Amino acid sequence: MDRTHFENGIEEVRMLPSFDDEHGGVIVEMEVPMDPNDFGVILRCSISKWKLQGKKGVWIKLPIELVNLVEAAVKEGFLYHHAEPHYLMLVYWIPETFSTIPANASHRLRIGAIVLNDNRELVVVQEKQGSFRGTGIWKIPTGIVEEGEDIFLGARREVKEETGIDTEFVDVLAFRQVHNTFFGKSDLFFLCMLRPLSFDIHKQDSEIEAAKWMPIAEYEAQPFAQKHYIYKYAAHLCLAKVDGVCTGFVPLPVASSFNDETSYLYVNNKDLSL
Amino acid sequence: MDRTHFENGIEEVRMLPSFDDEHGGVIVEMEVPMDPNDFGVILRCSISKWKLQGKKGVWIKLPIELVNLVEAAVKEGFLYHHAEPHYLMLVYWIPETFSTIPANASHRLRIGAIVLNDNRELVVVQEKQGSFRGTGIWKIPTGIVEEGEDIFLGARREVKEETGIDTEFVDVLAFRQVHNTFFGKSDLFFLCMLRPLSFDIHKQDSEIEAAKWMPIAEYEAQPFAQKHYIYKYAAHLCLAKVDGVCTGFVPLPVASSFNDETSYLYVNNKDLSL
Repeated sequence: MDRTHFENGIEEVRMLPSFDDEHGGVIVEMEVPMDPNDFGVILRCSISKWKLQGKKGVWIKLPIELVNLVEAAVKEGFLYHHAEPHYLMLVYWIPETFSTIPANASHRLRIGAIVLNDNRELVVVQEKQGSFRGTGIWKIPTGIVEEGEDIFLGARREVKEETGIDTEFVDVLAFRQVHNTFFGKSDLFFLCMLRPLSFDIHKQDSEIEAAKWMPIAEYEAQPFAQKHYIYKYAAHLCLAKVDGVCTGFVPLPVASSFNDETSYLYVNNKDLSL
Repeated sequence: MDRTHFENGIEEVRMLPSFDDEHGGVIVEMEVPMDPNDFGVILRCSISKWKLQGKKGVWIKLPIELVNLVEAAVKEGFLYHHAEPHYLMLVYWIPETFSTIPANASHRLRIGAIVLNDNRELVVVQEKQGSFRGTGIWKIPTGIVEEGEDIFLGARREVKEETGIDTEFVDVLAFRQVHNTFFGKSDLFFLCMLRPLSFDIHKQDSEIEAAKWMPIAEYEAQPFAQKHYIYKYAAHLCLAKVDGVCTGFVPLPVASSFNDETSYLYVNNKDLSL
């Protein structure tokens, strides 16, 4: 136990190291191993102190190496908030009032890339894995937008990785929201239009069975594209695009009001005199 | 220990109850309490068996009541995958090959609602909490899209909750992606246009200080709206809309290829003969 005994018999228990967040709460980032029983006692005392100070939410971030402290935190009333591979974040709401603890991330972002050349041909691939494996179906390149990655950069990256083709981003033609795709979370799929800057295909061996340029009409004629709306719309939108109709949202850099980073606003800038 | 001793001296250790997922892995949903040491032994044996069976990812879902089993799973090599308030999901990748464990949810969705009447007035609010508290700034209603909620329904719900006004969804005028807004996760903010179906304002007491109809020009003239691009664009886009230019994406119901639920494709349907 990490207690200081005073001469008058009063003992003081050390507080957990913490810093204030911007919402009246405190954050504890545990880094050094501690005996779970000691941790429980110090945590209880810390909560009492924070309560007196009028603190609201208490966050505890536990790296996976300190997994032996998780149980003690839960015993003190903490709930899980979120987890990433190497840490678990727990949270405890002190006040009697309604909790304003922010919601966890709820969506994963995916992109589908329409890369169109001047001959009205699309870049299409056959995948080695997933539900399209072995079906012979030619589809547009798709992939997950990585954490912290901009949608338009994710689309360019996926096309480059899967087919070796360099592209310039044109616009987002549509997006689709689908619920319950994994563990109760949702998918947001962005259908993106890109302009090829190179044309030789060098396919990725690990994920892609085959890649080629395919005429839009041929792509659209695949029975699969008729059945799956998003792929059918891809062809429709693609043709609308070729025919000179602008339908999409273009990424414009704007200053973020959250932090110092540049963020992107996706908007139909044709009708907006900016 | 939960072992069956056979007459020939060979002992068989019980496997953890599991079911197969669609990607060559297994899912264990623990529900009944178990001694942590027993759990560790049975888990180790189960992994050996799954390995022989060629299984890939092993998922363990532990409700918060079984927090005492977390440490044993981590000791066997499991990492955290994600957590919600009342459970923790751990995962272990058996093969030597590259892990195809799906990424965790990375984004939170927010909406901003432009509710415009025939007098070119917007519904605006002053918030009791957050960074706008006490600033006197009139802003459009905003809020978090709940888990499993469609964007357009989230926009209608927030307007109803904050101002009591019933609305019809028109379209998404723009969206903005901002990184590192909370714990390394990102925000996607959808600027939505809605048509009011009722006009009397009944503000929400808990979150809203004041709510009213405000002329677009007056809204736009606020120094705040000049500085914060998203609010400035809101006025711009709003005016473009009033002047009859269609810029947004409309939600269209489409069949999902993931599951049986209806999902929504947001697209500029004016240029699409569907």
